[in-house]
Amino acid sequence: MTATPWGTIAHLGTVELFTPELEGSVWFFTEILGLTETGRRDGSVLLRAYDNYETTSLVLTERDRPGMGPTSLRASSPEALDLIERAVGESGREASWIEGYAGHGRTLRTTDPDGHEIDVYHDTTWYDAPEGLRAALKNQPQAKPNRGVGVRRLDHVNYLAQDVLANAEFHQQVLGARATEQIQLDTGAIAARWMTYTHKSYDVVYTEDWTGSRGRLHHIAFATDGREDILRACDLCIDNGVFIETGPHKHAIQQTFFLYVYEPGGNRIELCNPLTRLVFAPDWRLVTWTEAERKKGQAWGLQTIESFHTHGTPLA
Amino acid sequence: MTATPWGTIAHLGTVELFTPELEGSVWFFTEILGLTETGRRDGSVLLRAYDNYETTSLVLTERDRPGMGPTSLRASSPEALDLIERAVGESGREASWIEGYAGHGRTLRTTDPDGHEIDVYHDTTWYDAPEGLRAALKNQPQAKPNRGVGVRRLDHVNYLAQDVLANAEFHQQVLGARATEQIQLDTGAIAARWMTYTHKSYDVVYTEDWTGSRGRLHHIAFATDGREDILRACDLCIDNGVFIETGPHKHAIQQTFFLYVYEPGGNRIELCNPLTRLVFAPDWRLVTWTEAERKKGQAWGLQTIESFHTHGTPLA
Amino acid sequence: MTATPWGTIAHLGTVELFTPELEGSVWFFTEILGLTETGRRDGSVLLRAYDNYETTSLVLTERDRPGMGPTSLRASSPEALDLIERAVGESGREASWIEGYAGHGRTLRTTDPDGHEIDVYHDTTWYDAPEGLRAALKNQPQAKPNRGVGVRRLDHVNYLAQDVLANAEFHQQVLGARATEQIQLDTGAIAARWMTYTHKSYDVVYTEDWTGSRGRLHHIAFATDGREDILRACDLCIDNGVFIETGPHKHAIQQTFFLYVYEPGGNRIELCNPLTRLVFAPDWRLVTWTEAERKKGQAWGLQTIESFHTHGTPLA
Amino acid sequence: MTATPWGTIAHLGTVELFTPELEGSVWFFTEILGLTETGRRDGSVLLRAYDNYETTSLVLTERDRPGMGPTSLRASSPEALDLIERAVGESGREASWIEGYAGHGRTLRTTDPDGHEIDVYHDTTWYDAPEGLRAALKNQPQAKPNRGVGVRRLDHVNYLAQDVLANAEFHQQVLGARATEQIQLDTGAIAARWMTYTHKSYDVVYTEDWTGSRGRLHHIAFATDGREDILRACDLCIDNGVFIETGPHKHAIQQTFFLYVYEPGGNRIELCNPLTRLVFAPDWRLVTWTEAERKKGQAWGLQTIESFHTHGTPLA
Repeated sequence: MTATPWGTIAHLGTVELFTPELEGSVWFFTEILGLTETGRRDGSVLLRAYDNYETTSLVLTERDRPGMGPTSLRASSPEALDLIERAVGESGREASWIEGYAGHGRTLRTTDPDGHEIDVYHDTTWYDAPEGLRAALKNQPQAKPNRGVGVRRLDHVNYLAQDVLANAEFHQQVLGARATEQIQLDTGAIAARWMTYTHKSYDVVYTEDWTGSRGRLHHIAFATDGREDILRACDLCIDNGVFIETGPHKHAIQQTFFLYVYEPGGNRIELCNPLTRLVFAPDWRLVTWTEAERKKGQAWGLQTIESFHTHGTPLA
Repeated sequence: MTATPWGTIAHLGTVELFTPELEGSVWFFTEILGLTETGRRDGSVLLRAYDNYETTSLVLTERDRPGMGPTSLRASSPEALDLIERAVGESGREASWIEGYAGHGRTLRTTDPDGHEIDVYHDTTWYDAPEGLRAALKNQPQAKPNRGVGVRRLDHVNYLAQDVLANAEFHQQVLGARATEQIQLDTGAIAARWMTYTHKSYDVVYTEDWTGSRGRLHHIAFATDGREDILRACDLCIDNGVFIETGPHKHAIQQTFFLYVYEPGGNRIELCNPLTRLVFAPDWRLVTWTEAERKKGQAWGLQTIESFHTHGTPLA
Repeated sequence: MTATPWGTIAHLGTVELFTPELEGSVWFFTEILGLTETGRRDGSVLLRAYDNYETTSLVLTERDRPGMGPTSLRASSPEALDLIERAVGESGREASWIEGYAGHGRTLRTTDPDGHEIDVYHDTTWYDAPEGLRAALKNQPQAKPNRGVGVRRLDHVNYLAQDVLANAEFHQQVLGARATEQIQLDTGAIAARWMTYTHKSYDVVYTEDWTGSRGRLHHIAFATDGREDILRACDLCIDNGVFIETGPHKHAIQQTFFLYVYEPGGNRIELCNPLTRLVFAPDWRLVTWTEAERKKGQAWGLQTIESFHTHGTPLA
Repeated sequence: MTATPWGTIAHLGTVELFTPELEGSVWFFTEILGLTETGRRDGSVLLRAYDNYETTSLVLTERDRPGMGPTSLRASSPEALDLIERAVGESGREASWIEGYAGHGRTLRTTDPDGHEIDVYHDTTWYDAPEGLRAALKNQPQAKPNRGVGVRRLDHVNYLAQDVLANAEFHQQVLGARATEQIQLDTGAIAARWMTYTHKSYDVVYTEDWTGSRGRLHHIAFATDGREDILRACDLCIDNGVFIETGPHKHAIQQTFFLYVYEPGGNRIELCNPLTRLVFAPDWRLVTWTEAERKKGQAWGLQTIESFHTHGTPLA
């Protein structure tokens, strides 16, 4: 079995979140983050970040408790989608074609070893901004929102998993991700791994789920234009009763400037900014952080908050 | 006649603007600048910047053409207000007591030599934010707006005048302003002077009106939290059809980072940011810029735009 | 006895710090903060921030342990200096005239009740930048440094004291400071008070010294141009082995964006940025934070670090 | 002949500039931009940006007039390098293997149709920071410089060419670049095209050379961490006598926040910041700007400066 090459998956598409407080969650994503609601269908609300060339960044669906639905990844061509189908098959994982959603064409649905649903598609709908939402510049799909933070894009997904390595290898070998950083415990076990499909330093992350649950979410992240947007977000959060879990600060791992909050439905949301950092080396040397290094905390000395190791959705 | 001491006037209070497009102007100040509308009365709309401890920063009044109404200045004590009354009287200018407006107590109304109305008051109403607009921090009068730029305060007023020096001397001798910078033409005439009542480097400015009109406005300015807010404002302006006259750039004079736009009523509005620059010297040495120095343009080389020397409201 | 009016003291001038590692401290202040060394005399090094119109912001003196020497305050006029002399005398505190230092003329030296030396002067030397350090703009005393953070000014001093209230009253009644914020314990005792001589929201602070020592320093602070300078400082600190005690974050009290580090001599140094926040109200209502409010931590939720309550210089 | 696929070239490596003022140029790149000099050899100076995982970003060579030497591009694998060799051969262009320089292994040298030298290599030397230049974080190749702007990376090269389309097709078909934006004149001619090898929105640009010269440089660009670094650079430039040609402002095309200066040798250098904008679509739809759209100037209304259409190096 040959590993799928990097570049087969083009980028992260949309993520679905479950929320027991649908209107509260919609308020948070539109009024605080500045996403745009584009429609509702079957109890789900479709939302988009302003620099998404496709139609949808986030699907919010009402459920009795928070958590995550499928993550969709766009294959770089119809052939790439076929290649993914074969690679999934060879890996022994089940997959099936489903009707595309959120503007996507036919979609291959599978799961990672931990049970998170992964959807891969190629055909997609390019966003055509309606009057009133058009940007002044023709290279921008939508006007910059005048409310909330105005996040640019869905940036990455951080999954909780029982077996980080097995899930990472699924992304690397079957989907063609490139690993950039990881945490290795003194036991040799991989406690977290960051992987990328692009020149961003990461698009997907797996973190060990200490509770032993399966299929849970650590957080999804939205990228802001700059660090000042994250500092402004802090003020918007405290003035609007949004719970800040930790930050703003800079991660040692990946150097991301971050803020973690809980949206009203209970899911952890990160606002992130990598400045202009990108990983260009095609033969990037996986950076391994030891248990001792992780204990030192974040880049500038902030201790990692305890709930970061325990809170996931759905609650365990 | 003794010059009124610096400190007698505490700070700039409110400014009234006239607009032929009242709803358009209200849209601009609330949705783009992020001011809060607090009430309407007799055809006027009252608006406030979030860090104003008083109730009102801007009064918008419908008129057939743009321009400005009174500027109000807060005296630092009841005695300071009496001192201003005497000084105005000694200066030979007329003054009368009017009923306070915009939350102010009894108000002394006079005019500068060019005819702009100047109101001085001391008693004032402290802003008491209603539920939903309260800030998380008790040292902040109002929650930071989640829409538009979210400007912090009305920062300064730049008046056009036939005789800059006469008007500057009125502010310096009668009202106790301190002059910080000026432009002196080769003829010896003062073409512009910047003055302050505070440790900000300027609160009021007079600029020569080349058209020979009287009582006109060059611009009013709102201070943003940082320069990034001004860059964000640029994007909001182009995406929402707000005309940018010039900027963003940094003024050589006063070093202000600036953006000039026209609000829908036609008045020029500046977004300004001085970083943390303040003038502390009680014996500050007036900085004089020559005609040649002014011709060099702005701090980083931008040429001063022609309309900057001609556009004022009302149009001449 | 009449309270000295606000405005009698114009602003903070210089502070002297003691350091057992003189060259290490000079390296920190020049290479990391971006101060300019202007001379050495009698074992002291004179340093200045680029926007100081006077010659000196900081005097560093070698001693066997860290700590602070005199704080100098500039009186707003010769008459103001005389007024301060009388007020100090009436308050029963001792004072004597000393030869000015750091470019200052004759200087009145007294102490606050806790024993910190306070020097007041009026005559001063305006900085005349030598070739190579001149700014392009004539309203700026010195070119912006091209190394380190490039802090704009000495911003404030935070003194530790046994009796906060007694020391605060000395500044308010004798020196004419205006109190803006304070912490009041459940016992009624004032645990900290912030006071200002300007329109900045504070210039001097007294914090309770839990160790019962006298005359100690909590920290001195330098203002940066923006918050991004503080974020950049974080990276410079970790890459150069400068210890970050806490931050970056935003204080609830005074809303200052902050970073606390220890300079190589052991003194705590703050980099601070207030955005464009200023306190203009001449009758500002003292904001009181309760013990419960203080326990909530900083503005965005960071818990106050334990060493913040214990570390002062000299070490107790 | 098959077009080389995107991804064959991994990223831009180094650029060589010629300068008649070698020490002046070195001063600019180290003290103003904050590059690090790593060595000198045969009249050339090697310089690097702090986030480069390889050893060298810029080679400066003394010549009697400014201009550019080879641009080097890293192939993503040994096989990719072979593929490039075949593609160049099939295209009819000459190529030869040369000894690698600037830390690169064997290198294929060819030229674009306009005569600019293009070097392609795969084997490379990873930067191993010496004591004193090591970063605190193991995922960063070098400490962040404490002087000058501290640019992160060589970002892109903008070549002048007689025939933009021919040169663009060379990059697209032979080297596997993806075109993202272009300017098309009313005559149908392509006046400029922006292309990328990565998820950055451009790495190389061709602009029509109105003088009819060949092999000239419009500018090379370095990416800063944020926009504030560019604003800080403006102040450093005016205080140090570096000529600012235009900016800071935001390009309509590619939305880059920019500043253009001339280094002491005469070459145009851009400081650029794209915020977090990236182009992820594998089937990105080439954005075409018309002559009329180009005439509107930059994103926020700044008119394009005349010298932007005439100044190139060497001077024509």
